[in-house]
Amino acid sequence: MRIVAPLAFSIAFASFSAPAMAQFQKPEDAVKYRKAVMTIMGNHAGRLGAMANGRVPFNATAAADSAALLESLSKLPWEAFVAGTDKGDTRAKPEIWAEQAKFKENSDKLQAETAKLAAAAKTGNLDSVRTAFGSVGQTCKACHDAYQKN
Amino acid sequence: MRIVAPLAFSIAFASFSAPAMAQFQKPEDAVKYRKAVMTIMGNHAGRLGAMANGRVPFNATAAADSAALLESLSKLPWEAFVAGTDKGDTRAKPEIWAEQAKFKENSDKLQAETAKLAAAAKTGNLDSVRTAFGSVGQTCKACHDAYQKN
Repeated sequence: MRIVAPLAFSIAFASFSAPAMAQFQKPEDAVKYRKAVMTIMGNHAGRLGAMANGRVPFNATAAADSAALLESLSKLPWEAFVAGTDKGDTRAKPEIWAEQAKFKENSDKLQAETAKLAAAAKTGNLDSVRTAFGSVGQTCKACHDAYQKN
Repeated sequence: MRIVAPLAFSIAFASFSAPAMAQFQKPEDAVKYRKAVMTIMGNHAGRLGAMANGRVPFNATAAADSAALLESLSKLPWEAFVAGTDKGDTRAKPEIWAEQAKFKENSDKLQAETAKLAAAAKTGNLDSVRTAFGSVGQTCKACHDAYQKN
């Protein structure tokens, strides 16, 4: 089934026709790319989490760097959820493609929350980072619960 | 053999003691992280290369985004070359650890060249992007030739 998506989101759900091909040669490349983004995001979320919960001392510069990186990376994975890439070495659920508007809401929310986290981290205030990080964490979890296989 | 490295670079060659552990739980995590960074860098270098050589039309915004991302990502992989991580699922050559000063020169050069590329891409001038991209490509290749197994 091919669902007609709004233009702004259609790139993410394009088949492997010309525009998507420019970014990903093969479906496996799209899967590998979005997993790579998630790997780096997970690592830097872990660094921020360790500071937020006091497991490691708060380092304002490192926190700001990790938060800025999360904001940049939060824009990337979505175009790689190309139609048909719920197969192979991926935990992506088919619901991603069946519920495109809801999935886009989740991806928009992550971008908004990581932007807030980056702004909070720039202030160098640990309490602000902790609050903003909590929202980012909830956003990650909600989307993974809905759209990622265990 | 453990070589004493200058402080600024010592993190990259730390063993799995406290500071490095905060970033990577296991040696495999460090390998996975640096490979993820390279995957994303390779993808966006590919997008810029396609524009630089005319395979796809020049899109100034997309080029600036990819170049800014390359500049950010160019800072990341080095701390993940933790001592002892030339084993497992990696093509990293032992020379990385035997020639730390030379490897650092290469990593510094990549960061400098991607910064120039990001600046060039901000101007929106394709010729400038092409020139700067050429230097980035040579920097990637020189380091891969020296420090990556085929």
